[in-house]
Amino acid sequence: MTQKIAILGASGYTGAELIRLIATHPTLEIAALSGDRKAGQPMSSVYPHLRHLDLPVLVRIEDIRFTNIDMVFCALPHATSQSVIRELPGHLKVVDLSADFRLRDPEEYEKWYGKPHGAPEQQLEAVYGLTEFYRDEIRNARLVAGTGCNAATGQFALRPLIEAGVIDLDDIVMDLKAATSGAGRSLKEHLLLSELYENVKPYSVGGTHRHLGEFDQEFSKIAGRPVQVQLTPHLIPASRGIVMTCYLKGDAQEVHKTLEKAYSNETFLQVLPFGEVPQMKDTRASNFCHIGVAGDRIPGRTTVVAVLDNLTKGSSGQAIQNANLMLGLDETTGLMAPPVYP
Amino acid sequence: MTQKIAILGASGYTGAELIRLIATHPTLEIAALSGDRKAGQPMSSVYPHLRHLDLPVLVRIEDIRFTNIDMVFCALPHATSQSVIRELPGHLKVVDLSADFRLRDPEEYEKWYGKPHGAPEQQLEAVYGLTEFYRDEIRNARLVAGTGCNAATGQFALRPLIEAGVIDLDDIVMDLKAATSGAGRSLKEHLLLSELYENVKPYSVGGTHRHLGEFDQEFSKIAGRPVQVQLTPHLIPASRGIVMTCYLKGDAQEVHKTLEKAYSNETFLQVLPFGEVPQMKDTRASNFCHIGVAGDRIPGRTTVVAVLDNLTKGSSGQAIQNANLMLGLDETTGLMAPPVYP
Amino acid sequence: MTQKIAILGASGYTGAELIRLIATHPTLEIAALSGDRKAGQPMSSVYPHLRHLDLPVLVRIEDIRFTNIDMVFCALPHATSQSVIRELPGHLKVVDLSADFRLRDPEEYEKWYGKPHGAPEQQLEAVYGLTEFYRDEIRNARLVAGTGCNAATGQFALRPLIEAGVIDLDDIVMDLKAATSGAGRSLKEHLLLSELYENVKPYSVGGTHRHLGEFDQEFSKIAGRPVQVQLTPHLIPASRGIVMTCYLKGDAQEVHKTLEKAYSNETFLQVLPFGEVPQMKDTRASNFCHIGVAGDRIPGRTTVVAVLDNLTKGSSGQAIQNANLMLGLDETTGLMAPPVYP
Amino acid sequence: MTQKIAILGASGYTGAELIRLIATHPTLEIAALSGDRKAGQPMSSVYPHLRHLDLPVLVRIEDIRFTNIDMVFCALPHATSQSVIRELPGHLKVVDLSADFRLRDPEEYEKWYGKPHGAPEQQLEAVYGLTEFYRDEIRNARLVAGTGCNAATGQFALRPLIEAGVIDLDDIVMDLKAATSGAGRSLKEHLLLSELYENVKPYSVGGTHRHLGEFDQEFSKIAGRPVQVQLTPHLIPASRGIVMTCYLKGDAQEVHKTLEKAYSNETFLQVLPFGEVPQMKDTRASNFCHIGVAGDRIPGRTTVVAVLDNLTKGSSGQAIQNANLMLGLDETTGLMAPPVYP
Repeated sequence: MTQKIAILGASGYTGAELIRLIATHPTLEIAALSGDRKAGQPMSSVYPHLRHLDLPVLVRIEDIRFTNIDMVFCALPHATSQSVIRELPGHLKVVDLSADFRLRDPEEYEKWYGKPHGAPEQQLEAVYGLTEFYRDEIRNARLVAGTGCNAATGQFALRPLIEAGVIDLDDIVMDLKAATSGAGRSLKEHLLLSELYENVKPYSVGGTHRHLGEFDQEFSKIAGRPVQVQLTPHLIPASRGIVMTCYLKGDAQEVHKTLEKAYSNETFLQVLPFGEVPQMKDTRASNFCHIGVAGDRIPGRTTVVAVLDNLTKGSSGQAIQNANLMLGLDETTGLMAPPVYP
Repeated sequence: MTQKIAILGASGYTGAELIRLIATHPTLEIAALSGDRKAGQPMSSVYPHLRHLDLPVLVRIEDIRFTNIDMVFCALPHATSQSVIRELPGHLKVVDLSADFRLRDPEEYEKWYGKPHGAPEQQLEAVYGLTEFYRDEIRNARLVAGTGCNAATGQFALRPLIEAGVIDLDDIVMDLKAATSGAGRSLKEHLLLSELYENVKPYSVGGTHRHLGEFDQEFSKIAGRPVQVQLTPHLIPASRGIVMTCYLKGDAQEVHKTLEKAYSNETFLQVLPFGEVPQMKDTRASNFCHIGVAGDRIPGRTTVVAVLDNLTKGSSGQAIQNANLMLGLDETTGLMAPPVYP
Repeated sequence: MTQKIAILGASGYTGAELIRLIATHPTLEIAALSGDRKAGQPMSSVYPHLRHLDLPVLVRIEDIRFTNIDMVFCALPHATSQSVIRELPGHLKVVDLSADFRLRDPEEYEKWYGKPHGAPEQQLEAVYGLTEFYRDEIRNARLVAGTGCNAATGQFALRPLIEAGVIDLDDIVMDLKAATSGAGRSLKEHLLLSELYENVKPYSVGGTHRHLGEFDQEFSKIAGRPVQVQLTPHLIPASRGIVMTCYLKGDAQEVHKTLEKAYSNETFLQVLPFGEVPQMKDTRASNFCHIGVAGDRIPGRTTVVAVLDNLTKGSSGQAIQNANLMLGLDETTGLMAPPVYP
Repeated sequence: MTQKIAILGASGYTGAELIRLIATHPTLEIAALSGDRKAGQPMSSVYPHLRHLDLPVLVRIEDIRFTNIDMVFCALPHATSQSVIRELPGHLKVVDLSADFRLRDPEEYEKWYGKPHGAPEQQLEAVYGLTEFYRDEIRNARLVAGTGCNAATGQFALRPLIEAGVIDLDDIVMDLKAATSGAGRSLKEHLLLSELYENVKPYSVGGTHRHLGEFDQEFSKIAGRPVQVQLTPHLIPASRGIVMTCYLKGDAQEVHKTLEKAYSNETFLQVLPFGEVPQMKDTRASNFCHIGVAGDRIPGRTTVVAVLDNLTKGSSGQAIQNANLMLGLDETTGLMAPPVYP
């Protein structure tokens, strides 16, 4: 038995990554692909690496017949997504990969995204898609909001620690290194190879990165009181991958034990032996997240490093993982390919 | 029903790539891994990206019990391979990924590799592992010699053209761009990131690259007379991938038709529409090879560009493809994952 | 005594490179900088690496008073350049870095650039700026047309060979590897780091690259009969640099001697010992061009590899070299900084 | 008048960088180059990018006649340096680029470098070479100890802040991104392009990086009491450059003003406007250091980002700057070339 899938916004990187993953998924079947500016084109001209697949031609969203579709992946740009999802037939299960439904509080949404939400009803309904922490809700959800890729990385590092109360909540520093595909296939000067090769570029400094909205929401909810982290993101010369280096106050051994225990049954969340930290490439093109903990010569200080692939575990892999749950499949179906190394 | 696999030389890049591919192969099962200098270590300390897999600890070759093994992948260094394979129990099916059994003529072997062959009997027995052209022999072989990664790329571009007689055999120019993993995990100065970043480095100029021995052997055999190509390899700043740009004399349309026809039933060999040429990354981490043909403003000149991933289709993917045939499985089993892009 | 310089189009890469070089030039002084879309901005906001320099604010071209200017570097986009230069005061010495004045024949210009030339008088007047071969004309020129960066590289490799008649003029194959800054700071999808990292991308295949117009013009002129080369350009993941690999028919020793002799007094053109070929990074950020010659196992075949930095020797360094001549200075003034390695 | 220079250990990256910088220095003249393992070779075979320079052949140290030498740059590996410098004629001015003379306290040296110091007399004599803070001592020194490249970056960011008492000394977090050339031309697996391309690799976690010894020494000295920082270094895929992101407690405006004031007369230390932070490439191949300060949404939190080129300002450029002082030259002589961008 197969489930028929439509991908809206298939011409972006997360769309292409969904297709890559679905190609070896045993039961999902791609029935429709949209790409407004590229409507009418075959996927092989937008993404030649997919040329061996027998894929539907890109169409405009309004030309998709949703009657036969079981599930929609919505990989549209932020703000576009909400207006599209609002109009989709109510029976459809939807996994949204944009930022539109991540924040539950309309005011928080407006604060971080600069305008009122255009689909407040759906916003209320949406389940936050961090699979390992919202499994039950996701299983029963109609609309799941994929998390920010950086937000996912940081939460995998810190949620159990906040929950267990083993770190100082008022002194969390996060230093983010993010590859370029997190910014999509958009034409921006600082994303040119000429600009970013041999470079590291801090951006959104001073607490202005939008994924902070997710950290605020989730960490405060777990802690039962407001929690704010200090975060500096840096663009690095790589196409895929995220490294989140977290500087914490707490006992390193206790931090390690807490993470090990929390993730002992999690397939995709791998906690390294104490004192070892992961490198970014160890999770490349896979749905795995590696997490390491080290102590410091300064007593009471701990460093936690979490790495994952922004397009897979940080976005499209997470989306498939959630879709598996929503469709009653085993959560790991189609997601067990190991990382690509070197 | 599963087939039990031993990988000899599992601590190199082709060994790690074999494990990556076998991890999602439905019937192959890794029963033993050797790595002489790293014997006693778990794979997760040699390749942390594989930490989620339940793999055997690395052992010395002499500590492997081959009784229960169905097939051996030999990913040892050149020259080591022949002495090991010579001593393996005769019942074992073997796919060798080294250069040791690629050349049939002992004199040619000595010419290119600088010393007499150490396993001349096995050399005679070995089947050349370019799957798409040696399928029947591979199906019945006990020992298959994996091809050189660059040699595979060039042959996919040119074999049908030589066979069909549509190009001038005395005027074949090949310009090779090769990523660093083709040189393995060996510690050489020119492979340091400091040296090769922002660089392109020609090497083995003047007709000295060892893969020329394979071109000579195969092209001359097809043509029924000596054929020699002119080749300049270049190291490029990338970890995986090969681009072979071939400058040919012949009619471009005819060249294109010949390739299209030759590969019309080949799953992994994708011929692009006339006039389009592939980019290297379009085959990354996959078993696909993309081939494009363009004419030139100079009549009678043709450019053929072939790209593939040296570690997958150029080496470990090819090895699995051959193993599938030798084990009576469908040739594409476990190899259909699309390329990783971007 | 100083010479006052205006740079038109200072917000592009060649503009920034001119400023970098002029900053340590003993007599050139930057008096005006134009950048239409960025008019009103300080250079430090367009190129923060120049923040320590006391530079004029970017203005619109029409706001520059050319009365006090001794020389103009015109680093504007193709096609824009001709309409601007046409209107400049006649007393001004001009070095143009665009493609607008490279081709002498109006029909050739129209063929390669798709429309009639907009400044035919100046086109007639312009001297082709390949310094080492047009020194005397450049010394006396009012308007010098900077060459294409790839065109310069190929000509350094081949001009003396064509002149000396030591290679087969009907069988010249050139394989080009070019870094991204050659395409400028323009927003194009294929120039994104996400797209080009871990990639090699052939482009303008089949004899369509515009620099072929320059090769045709120059090589045919030297040979006294039409000469056409076969060229395939490839974008590589690097920000600066060009490698031109030339496949030739001719005696390698004779080729080497011819180049050595031709360039024995040239400061910037370094011919390597016979059999050695250069790597791209050996000329990085410098005005040097390295050229190597190797024979082949096939008798009568020769490979010549030339490398240079597209922004320096291929463009802005060349422009300064020409300006030095036009201003009566020593040609190498301000250009002797060695390459940056690694 | 020229000063005759010997470079010991000229075959490493800092040696090559010294030669690059001296090549355009108006008065320094290279009289001798040593390179033990490469003795007898011309520099052009070790570093082909220097082939246009007329340099002495590499010799063994014992074959250098120091009688005519005015100054020695010692670019030898750690530990080797001390035994060589101990034996040099006492009249020689020496700038050491190794780690051997950075720490004044013999116990601290032994703690961080694992064995007793082999030249304790010279250790006492050596002046710490952070030019902007030790100018007077350097002017009169015979032996100057070049700082660690990362240590320099961090000190440029923090020294004035510690001195002025505007940050919390017990809560300094530093996240370091370092390019590969900081590790030299040594053959280590993790420095291979195959390993580090598309990667970010934390290393020396938990307070074990040796440059912490320098931070401890200098920061504690300024503060007049022990200061320890928390630091995680990360290798990034780039050949040159350092980014130090510092997370501080203190008022951001005050931090910015303190740095601006401290560096208002410093040529090479550029403080950006408040709220702007630098990117790594903005200082590439130059002697400049860019420093930016940003506030945070969390009151009382400040982020300072400092970037420089590890081989230039972090090592060989700093060495020339110190040599200029020791020789009575203007400090900036030969060091004013702007950064190379892109």
